Amino acid sequence: MPKVQRLKCCGTAGIASLTQTGYRGGMNKRITFSLSRTDGKARTGTIRTPRGDIRTPAFMPVGTAATVKAMLPESVRATGADVLLGNTYHLMLRPTAERIDRLGGLHRFMNWDRPILTDSGGFQVMSLSQLRKLTEEGVRFKSHIDGSDHMLTPERSMEIQRLLGSDIVMCFDECPALPATEEAVAKSMRMSMRWAKRSRDAFGDRPGHALFGIQQGGVTPDLRAESAEKLKEIGFDGYAIGGLAVGEGQEAMFGVLDYAPEMLPEDKPRYLMGVGKPDDIVGAVARGVDMMDCVLPSRSGRTGQIFTRRGVLNIKNARHQDDPRPLDEDCTCPACRNYSRAYLHHVFRAQEIISSMLLTWHNLQYYQELMQAMRDAISEGRFAAFEAAFHAQRAEGDIDPL
Amino acid sequence: MPKVQRLKCCGTAGIASLTQTGYRGGMNKRITFSLSRTDGKARTGTIRTPRGDIRTPAFMPVGTAATVKAMLPESVRATGADVLLGNTYHLMLRPTAERIDRLGGLHRFMNWDRPILTDSGGFQVMSLSQLRKLTEEGVRFKSHIDGSDHMLTPERSMEIQRLLGSDIVMCFDECPALPATEEAVAKSMRMSMRWAKRSRDAFGDRPGHALFGIQQGGVTPDLRAESAEKLKEIGFDGYAIGGLAVGEGQEAMFGVLDYAPEMLPEDKPRYLMGVGKPDDIVGAVARGVDMMDCVLPSRSGRTGQIFTRRGVLNIKNARHQDDPRPLDEDCTCPACRNYSRAYLHHVFRAQEIISSMLLTWHNLQYYQELMQAMRDAISEGRFAAFEAAFHAQRAEGDIDPL
Repeated sequence: MPKVQRLKCCGTAGIASLTQTGYRGGMNKRITFSLSRTDGKARTGTIRTPRGDIRTPAFMPVGTAATVKAMLPESVRATGADVLLGNTYHLMLRPTAERIDRLGGLHRFMNWDRPILTDSGGFQVMSLSQLRKLTEEGVRFKSHIDGSDHMLTPERSMEIQRLLGSDIVMCFDECPALPATEEAVAKSMRMSMRWAKRSRDAFGDRPGHALFGIQQGGVTPDLRAESAEKLKEIGFDGYAIGGLAVGEGQEAMFGVLDYAPEMLPEDKPRYLMGVGKPDDIVGAVARGVDMMDCVLPSRSGRTGQIFTRRGVLNIKNARHQDDPRPLDEDCTCPACRNYSRAYLHHVFRAQEIISSMLLTWHNLQYYQELMQAMRDAISEGRFAAFEAAFHAQRAEGDIDPL
Repeated sequence: MPKVQRLKCCGTAGIASLTQTGYRGGMNKRITFSLSRTDGKARTGTIRTPRGDIRTPAFMPVGTAATVKAMLPESVRATGADVLLGNTYHLMLRPTAERIDRLGGLHRFMNWDRPILTDSGGFQVMSLSQLRKLTEEGVRFKSHIDGSDHMLTPERSMEIQRLLGSDIVMCFDECPALPATEEAVAKSMRMSMRWAKRSRDAFGDRPGHALFGIQQGGVTPDLRAESAEKLKEIGFDGYAIGGLAVGEGQEAMFGVLDYAPEMLPEDKPRYLMGVGKPDDIVGAVARGVDMMDCVLPSRSGRTGQIFTRRGVLNIKNARHQDDPRPLDEDCTCPACRNYSRAYLHHVFRAQEIISSMLLTWHNLQYYQELMQAMRDAISEGRFAAFEAAFHAQRAEGDIDPL
């Protein structure tokens, strides 16, 4: 459970002190990564930050607009999450990075005192904004909320992530949609590498905070290698594998993951952005990935798609309407401990908010229990057996109707 | 905190046992009411039920469709609620009373093991259903959800409330909208009294469960007196004051409450249905009411209207967007302990679910803290001073902007 900090400041005198609370001194400690065990290509270890440890492989729930949708942060923590992801694009537009800074930073704003990783805004400005114009300088665009004009550059992205108080900052990059011509991917990757250098220069030296580079290069090994070399030359605290999970399919993604992680430094965390379904995650860990994030468990919780050890089920299906059994009898989340499938079906059909609350909690807990099971399996040198059991149990499918 | 019961039954064998859990033996104890203190007309006491005590004056949050919207039941309990209200009309249509019965009753279904009061369906069938036809027998209507045909009678209402497992059952009555002619009100009241007798006969003798009669008669003292006499002749475990909070305004309502509660037995709980705003509640308690229910705190939580000791504020107002202060610095709810007005403004504007979760929690906690303050004041013989302080603090209005 995160430490609950009482916010009770009166008048403007309280505002300045907010930025200081909690981490005096300790916030200057460097963020480090230590591997404790490898098993095949799979790795387990710890990222140590002034705001707490991140156990790897780690799954980061997405808190787009300063909230993991339908969850209180103490509940997110109760699922086992060590770190959240925040979205630069959304937060810069509303409530704005400057406002969050004045209010003491994103951690205090959203009542999450553990590590936060923020993306750079690069991916979402291309997928969500309107009338965007991409140049070497950066991206000019109009807000999807109110049409207002904005510019994102490597320098501005670093500034926003600093104002948010992000613990792990991502380089500003461009992520081309796949499929794309090799020439287009190469051109985009090389600009992203120039932006990576500008991000590094703008980030400067900030003890207690980490900057991650992002490898691009699509599905072309030579381009992935070129990108990795360029990033290593610049030097980062961690390395992301970008440009995947953009519609290329699992086979193509695993094809890249068969070689891309090893191009990156072994002694730094490797972060696969935007992934994924449970079997994507297991496959990525098997290939040497340490960190992932995805909206899938939380978004699916709101649409009634449920992840269990026996695969996927949809709670709106009529087969659940009289079923007194829990979603997953091995799960310890409140939805499984306290409610029947029949109840969850009812509140989903009635469009009650508690449906999103309980189903999101379940999905996030499933993901975190999956990560813990993988960390345990790697630590005990039985990851291959874990992987086989994972697939075998999913192949059984959901329990039979009553 | 309610006892968390693990629902983990496999196969059909589990279903039958659900109806038994938790209260073997104890469920046969009679529901009793004892007054511990009066102060002027205000009363404090305890309704003892096999599922736990209800401290009076009591405010009952509304859990229409087997959920208090945007709240987990353990959070509702944490606000101080001793009892919930469930809506017969909604539950009979979806998921149906028969289904809830098969699943072990409403308490288990919604994970609330403390007392539940259910209304009779009479009020909502008149306000929500389509193509309704009222006769001496009852009301025939079409569901507002799927247009299906249904009939509610005193006997069917008693059956549904029994299937739900309600602890406190309400008589089936008709509630005419005000203003109405005295003749129409009289005619309606007399039918409701015939329905009250049919409800009493259909309810039978059910130890551990209570049946409340409902006084009608609009704003006419003679009709209220006639109704009260008829109800006392039949004999109930508690008496509701119905037909108010239907558009007559606070002055007219208080006018009725100046005499109506005293027409009802002193040694039984008096329940004012569907009330109300904080000042309605304080005024009702001052006039001898013991129980109330209203959707206002939960519904307002979803629309951004916030109740505090200093009156009402609207979180969507731009004045809150940079305000680091809590909604109400004397409140102990999570919204006030952990979040700024600026954050609550942001998540409300961004239409995030956490906004409904936090603001509903705050409003329900405010209501329960108000009830506790009144119980304390009555116990200590200082209710008049409490009432004056309550109005004086509200008159101050919200804290000044920064």
